[in-house]
Amino acid sequence: MQEAKLKELLDSLTWTEKVGQLVQLSGDFFHSEELAVGPKKKLGITQETIDVVGSVLNVTGAETTRDVQGKYLKNSRHKIPLLFMADIIYGYRTIFPIPLGLGATWNPELIEEAYGVIARESRSAGAHVTYAPMVDLVRDARWGRCLESTGEDPQLNADFAEAMVRGLQQERGGRLEGIASCVKHFAAYGAAEAGREYNTVDMSERRLRQDYLSGYKSAVDAGAKLVMTSFNTYDGMPATGNEFLLKEILREEWGFDGVIISDYAAVQELIAHGVAKDEREATLLAMQATNDIDMKTGCYANELEPLISDGAIDTDLVNDAVWRVLKLKNDLGLFEDPYRGSTIGQEQQTLLTEENRRLARKVAQESIVLLQNKEELLPLTPNKERILLVGPYGDEQDLIGLWAVHGKSSDVVSIKSALEKELSSETFSFEKGCGLLADYQFLGEFGATKEQIHSLGMSDEEQGIALKQALEAGEQADIIIYAMGEHTMQSGEAGSRTDISLPTVQKEFMEKMVSLGKKNILIAISGRPLTFAKEVEQMDAIIQAWFPGTEGGNALVDILFGKVNPSGRLSMGFPENVGQLPMSYNEFKTGRPLNSSTHRGRFVTKYLDSANAPLFPFGFGLSYGTVVYSELTLNSKQMTEDLNISIKLKNTSSYEYLETVQLYIQDITGSVVRPVKELKKYQKVKLSPNEEKIIEFQLQRNDLYYYMKDMQFGTEPGDFIVFVGRNANDTQQEQFELL
Amino acid sequence: MQEAKLKELLDSLTWTEKVGQLVQLSGDFFHSEELAVGPKKKLGITQETIDVVGSVLNVTGAETTRDVQGKYLKNSRHKIPLLFMADIIYGYRTIFPIPLGLGATWNPELIEEAYGVIARESRSAGAHVTYAPMVDLVRDARWGRCLESTGEDPQLNADFAEAMVRGLQQERGGRLEGIASCVKHFAAYGAAEAGREYNTVDMSERRLRQDYLSGYKSAVDAGAKLVMTSFNTYDGMPATGNEFLLKEILREEWGFDGVIISDYAAVQELIAHGVAKDEREATLLAMQATNDIDMKTGCYANELEPLISDGAIDTDLVNDAVWRVLKLKNDLGLFEDPYRGSTIGQEQQTLLTEENRRLARKVAQESIVLLQNKEELLPLTPNKERILLVGPYGDEQDLIGLWAVHGKSSDVVSIKSALEKELSSETFSFEKGCGLLADYQFLGEFGATKEQIHSLGMSDEEQGIALKQALEAGEQADIIIYAMGEHTMQSGEAGSRTDISLPTVQKEFMEKMVSLGKKNILIAISGRPLTFAKEVEQMDAIIQAWFPGTEGGNALVDILFGKVNPSGRLSMGFPENVGQLPMSYNEFKTGRPLNSSTHRGRFVTKYLDSANAPLFPFGFGLSYGTVVYSELTLNSKQMTEDLNISIKLKNTSSYEYLETVQLYIQDITGSVVRPVKELKKYQKVKLSPNEEKIIEFQLQRNDLYYYMKDMQFGTEPGDFIVFVGRNANDTQQEQFELL
Repeated sequence: MQEAKLKELLDSLTWTEKVGQLVQLSGDFFHSEELAVGPKKKLGITQETIDVVGSVLNVTGAETTRDVQGKYLKNSRHKIPLLFMADIIYGYRTIFPIPLGLGATWNPELIEEAYGVIARESRSAGAHVTYAPMVDLVRDARWGRCLESTGEDPQLNADFAEAMVRGLQQERGGRLEGIASCVKHFAAYGAAEAGREYNTVDMSERRLRQDYLSGYKSAVDAGAKLVMTSFNTYDGMPATGNEFLLKEILREEWGFDGVIISDYAAVQELIAHGVAKDEREATLLAMQATNDIDMKTGCYANELEPLISDGAIDTDLVNDAVWRVLKLKNDLGLFEDPYRGSTIGQEQQTLLTEENRRLARKVAQESIVLLQNKEELLPLTPNKERILLVGPYGDEQDLIGLWAVHGKSSDVVSIKSALEKELSSETFSFEKGCGLLADYQFLGEFGATKEQIHSLGMSDEEQGIALKQALEAGEQADIIIYAMGEHTMQSGEAGSRTDISLPTVQKEFMEKMVSLGKKNILIAISGRPLTFAKEVEQMDAIIQAWFPGTEGGNALVDILFGKVNPSGRLSMGFPENVGQLPMSYNEFKTGRPLNSSTHRGRFVTKYLDSANAPLFPFGFGLSYGTVVYSELTLNSKQMTEDLNISIKLKNTSSYEYLETVQLYIQDITGSVVRPVKELKKYQKVKLSPNEEKIIEFQLQRNDLYYYMKDMQFGTEPGDFIVFVGRNANDTQQEQFELL
Repeated sequence: MQEAKLKELLDSLTWTEKVGQLVQLSGDFFHSEELAVGPKKKLGITQETIDVVGSVLNVTGAETTRDVQGKYLKNSRHKIPLLFMADIIYGYRTIFPIPLGLGATWNPELIEEAYGVIARESRSAGAHVTYAPMVDLVRDARWGRCLESTGEDPQLNADFAEAMVRGLQQERGGRLEGIASCVKHFAAYGAAEAGREYNTVDMSERRLRQDYLSGYKSAVDAGAKLVMTSFNTYDGMPATGNEFLLKEILREEWGFDGVIISDYAAVQELIAHGVAKDEREATLLAMQATNDIDMKTGCYANELEPLISDGAIDTDLVNDAVWRVLKLKNDLGLFEDPYRGSTIGQEQQTLLTEENRRLARKVAQESIVLLQNKEELLPLTPNKERILLVGPYGDEQDLIGLWAVHGKSSDVVSIKSALEKELSSETFSFEKGCGLLADYQFLGEFGATKEQIHSLGMSDEEQGIALKQALEAGEQADIIIYAMGEHTMQSGEAGSRTDISLPTVQKEFMEKMVSLGKKNILIAISGRPLTFAKEVEQMDAIIQAWFPGTEGGNALVDILFGKVNPSGRLSMGFPENVGQLPMSYNEFKTGRPLNSSTHRGRFVTKYLDSANAPLFPFGFGLSYGTVVYSELTLNSKQMTEDLNISIKLKNTSSYEYLETVQLYIQDITGSVVRPVKELKKYQKVKLSPNEEKIIEFQLQRNDLYYYMKDMQFGTEPGDFIVFVGRNANDTQQEQFELL
């Protein structure tokens, strides 16, 4: 539709119709007569509102969306199509690894491809908008939503944010061929205090801009059509009512003219936060902050019209918001085709195709991080040793994590089934050995019954029998593979934990099994970094598998037997213990560093009972074989506009190798304190057996930019260190001077 | 000296002499020929500088200070006396409980009295300035310097800050009769990230002003003569070079015209922080921020004169700083009497007098917090039951904590010796049972040899024998008292820990002892809140004794046998586990509170595996007997300028009772998010057996002031809740409206 016509449409709407565009309700209101009654009453929503509502939450499937759209449009005076938005975070039907695993690929190009698959599947299922990517910077593994983030680093997060938006939106010649991306959660939600979900966020504007905004900015620059607000406060104001964040930074500084949508019920939550007295005030605050759509509360629906008729709100605010929603619908081509790309009966051709599965497998392979491999136990040779698989995740298809809400566990290749394809029954056996958790009280929180939860715990008696069987089977084995981890519901939203080690019942089981003295391999399934202080001693090998998605089992077997060389590198450090949190490799310099030239002994920054550093640092991951780094070379010791840096890599092994070469800098003296290390560049490099390669990087002057003392974004002349290496802790370094 | 004469003196000084006034060196430079050589060389300090240096660090004792002063003045052209400054934090010779224990008294009047004792002892020992009070707000028990703070609350910290300054300075009719107080560490040092010593601090200006500045402000308002900078950064700038903190807030807003001194080596640390390239830049930054004295580095000594002669520094900065130092010396009366109050041979009359000991005992009594008392096991009746005392702190005089640097353990009344005075040998016995720690590697950091450390660990063999003896003795006992805790060096400066439970060797010992099935009482000695999740199950009673000081043993026995009713109340919550940190009772409201009316189940702010709340909340403490609260009454439901609140207390027991009645408020809706509870008033009330009393509070309008959205300090009309009760979690409440 031409903009002029769209403008006419806007002008022709009544206030009721305009307000409707700013309201988002869940599908219950549209396609389930029974369910709608309760919520309607609870929200105080009238049928009149429902008839003009602008968008709908988490209704998917070609048949359903077409049905809802058809009925809706029939009753609609202006035939403005409904917008279908959904939580499609790391897969619609083909489920990729959780984003923390995607971060570990250090491969944004591959992830762009993956999000293209997600876009095509979602579009065919009738979705118009997905609430992705989530780009919240995370430095506290206690927080459950680590799962949805690509990690702790501003640069890496920015790169993945861009890749995901491009993959989702598939813009070609100005046309949006994928689905619209709603980047979230704006802003700084990942810094919830003490890692506790929905807790207060407090930080300086300097830190906000320097570290936490990079992912959102990158997504907006990549053209993300929507932005979702976060649940937290910033500077005492919840994001959904925060003019500084939404209006000043996002709209004015960044020029974002797309749709801002509140997170689930966040407009109404302004009351619980204590910044609005009632729904009327909440509505006013959110509108004044330019939050366009109210997700899932009755605030806008019930309060906006009275505010307008009382003259208590600037009507331009309302018209601008409605305009942005209509424009989004127009950009999606909904006025031309309200059923946009949804294809009934085409599921076989579009969803979970072999091609999609292949990509999911490749992504999972690159996401898996080999954390430990004593005496090169891995890779294994099929049918050489007798392998026993144990643990609650051994024969388990629920490997997709908490936020794959449209995915199906039944599609998932389990570890056991993948191993069975690879190994003979003479050399492979499985014993569950122990349950996932001893205590399932929290599972009911999603309304699940014990029967519905696939991986239940065991009674003491069952546990006794299972242990005995596992010990007996272990006696007959050469190698024991432990498929252990967090329960799906222990991470993700509202999955904050104060103890981030493996569940106790699993640790006790492992303790008994390792006493058999066999070779031990841990496959860890988790939505966050876990603490492995004990496991690094018990286990010969540790494989961090995240929630690896639909093709998880296959990808793990590919790694175990060396069909692919593990190449994942952590995008978030794994702490030694929970008492070190929050932590980040790019912490600021202190006056009394651990290796101080002026202070020794006690009086340096440290803990008495723990390292400062994580157990496994940012950027860490092993592969089979070794790549040797040498000859870090700078084309000059002085830099004006750019600097060329090279390093030689030599694959000394007989494996194909995918190495992620990482380049960090340190600004030795700034007008304010600078981090000890900052990732600036990286390359994922393929090396054939025994191949030698020179890897080249170029630093531009603006790669050194930061928020200086006066909050200007720039850089100051002076000395810098450049570090190049295989992870944040294992680098070579050279110094140069910026002129 | 008249100001005009002082001004003449200033004008008559050479730059070298002026700079000297801004340099502080340790005593080595003055009274120990051997030691001075090394430091002199390290700092590059010349004898010329030493001859004109203005102040000296940690030289005390009447004889020594008089000797050093005399020699110094003999060589001095202008006869400007040396200023003696020292770390006298919670006692000079008579050691009071650590400040976290003082906070637990909720009795600033008593603490003012205690600091009067400290002032008199210190003055007689030749000290002119003490680096106290430390008023850093602390919300993370991992940080070792919790020990030095009165706790987590802005109001309570402010009250104690004022009391300590008044007690130290003893100002009477404008004359400073005590010693000058140097409040520290400005600012916000207590918020070191992840509780790790010297780590970065980052927070919004709103939080800084709302919570963290209150203690410093109160000390400055009470007339503190000096302020010490902190080691941390704020907004990217280390405090010692931070113009916003030192110049804008402290000097311009607060009108502080006293001396600012850097913390130990903090000027030079601007280099390690990465904001100064070298000592010259460090000097310039610190001077521009109006930091007057450089403690313990060569920066000012070596770089200020070149800066002046190069015209690179505004000489007014230097003259102003020197003026402030001279003025302090004049305020102390040093020009009239450079030996001010130091009294050789008078130690017996001034130090550790019976009167001082009596006060230390009373303060210790009020600082001790009874955390648990199942079935009213306590108080004990002397010689009724057979009591076995066990544990490394049973027969230990080192109960003074890390920062009582001029105190002597040999003065301390141990728990065992105090019990022996009370009990017959038939009903009392002692077995150490276990060592304090298994691992003493960190003790060497203070240069201590194993022989010098009183409470060493035990070899495995010794441990085996000790345990056996303790178990045998336990069999014969009715009640076992465990004197356990942290080693002195596990807390205090640079005593950060990621595990804040009792040392493992002690936990293992307790586990074995409790299996005897006797009545168990834990006396916990610590510099911080410890996690007692297990101990609350094992123990019948838990007594938190902090490091209780010189009279610790006596005070504990007074409590154990009910000679005094315990009245201590925590000024810092005790977490359930380290994964909850940082935490505070006055956390901000979230959009999804734990008890939400709009959200249920999983999606509220919480951990899956832990309470949000501490195990023992802020304000908590038991006494013998019970006080019943009733009839919370407001004189009006509306408030304009003030509001009268009363509550009835009834002591239902036969014990004398000291109850701390606590009044909190909640601002239900503000222009920014407000805390769930804020302490505003408290009264420590004496109740005779069965006495009933009406306790009255008055809230003034400015008690409701806070930093509103626009950062103005004020309040907004609206609804408030007032809570009155015995701790932050156990209150009665009423609502009122502020007009």
